[in-house]
Amino acid sequence: MKTVTIRTAKRQEMIDVTGRLREFLQEEGLADGAVIAFTPHTTAAVTINENADPDVRHDMLLGLAEISPDRRAFKHGEGNSDAHIKSSLVGCSELILVEEGRPILGTWQGLYFCEFDGPRNRKLIFKKV
Amino acid sequence: MKTVTIRTAKRQEMIDVTGRLREFLQEEGLADGAVIAFTPHTTAAVTINENADPDVRHDMLLGLAEISPDRRAFKHGEGNSDAHIKSSLVGCSELILVEEGRPILGTWQGLYFCEFDGPRNRKLIFKKV
Amino acid sequence: MKTVTIRTAKRQEMIDVTGRLREFLQEEGLADGAVIAFTPHTTAAVTINENADPDVRHDMLLGLAEISPDRRAFKHGEGNSDAHIKSSLVGCSELILVEEGRPILGTWQGLYFCEFDGPRNRKLIFKKV
Repeated sequence: MKTVTIRTAKRQEMIDVTGRLREFLQEEGLADGAVIAFTPHTTAAVTINENADPDVRHDMLLGLAEISPDRRAFKHGEGNSDAHIKSSLVGCSELILVEEGRPILGTWQGLYFCEFDGPRNRKLIFKKV
Repeated sequence: MKTVTIRTAKRQEMIDVTGRLREFLQEEGLADGAVIAFTPHTTAAVTINENADPDVRHDMLLGLAEISPDRRAFKHGEGNSDAHIKSSLVGCSELILVEEGRPILGTWQGLYFCEFDGPRNRKLIFKKV
Repeated sequence: MKTVTIRTAKRQEMIDVTGRLREFLQEEGLADGAVIAFTPHTTAAVTINENADPDVRHDMLLGLAEISPDRRAFKHGEGNSDAHIKSSLVGCSELILVEEGRPILGTWQGLYFCEFDGPRNRKLIFKKV
């Protein structure tokens, strides 16, 4: 198991952590199997999506903000219920397949840490499954 | 593998099942690895989110109802298509990491069974992965 | 690991791949454990939901299109950002439990490949975890 720290800079942000995943595979010498990437936060998430055009990230964050906006009827005093919802919609973990020491990802896929209530210091955990 | 039963009381409800997960780990004597929590229902889900302020649960259910309302154009005769959609958005399983016999969860994280079309008798399955 | 190919026929479509999963289990002779179903695409997804009434699929796709429509403010030149968002909301993988050679699925559950930007030739990967 390895915990990496991530310093986010904005309220909403998608940070490419595919390199961190590859580092973990190398350090572990994991040739074949699966790895979970898990974040222990309730206003963040982990997802796999396009890592080519940065406009996709822009659009995803914009779309998620439209899907889960702040709402008047929310009661939670911290005012970040929109982010809690985004966290459960996107999910706090991804399971990544590994073969020949490399993550099985499509041509356009990268692994992302999603910040929904930053800026904050965040943790991302990798573990063999 | 262990199947636990859950009696839900409302149409929409988030029930903290972290204690059930800890019980499973103790019974299995699982020290290190991962556990899947899976629900075999199509209008329910499993998620990890805040277990401190109950207002977060209130806001999450309210937000999900806004995101996936009942819609006139729905054709399914049971009238619960909104709940089927919520089930696939939130997801019917979570993979939980385990170390030293304890689930790896953040300070504010708990495991939740999400009812979207209750009240009903529901099942939740735990299994080592 | 096994890669199956799927030819989708519409822009949005849910294709039942439970039979493909059962085939994989038979070929592998997997009696007990778990299998991941993963799609290496960024505008597709994998989910578990009802496989009885086809109207549920109709309603799910309709609901998802309402939840993540095309939006004017999107910048991505391909014009499919709505589909990227759906992919991360539904998720690109499912973990399926296996006992006695059979997937543990509820009475009404089936495994679905979700196309959000078709028609295309797609891949779905099965692997023991």
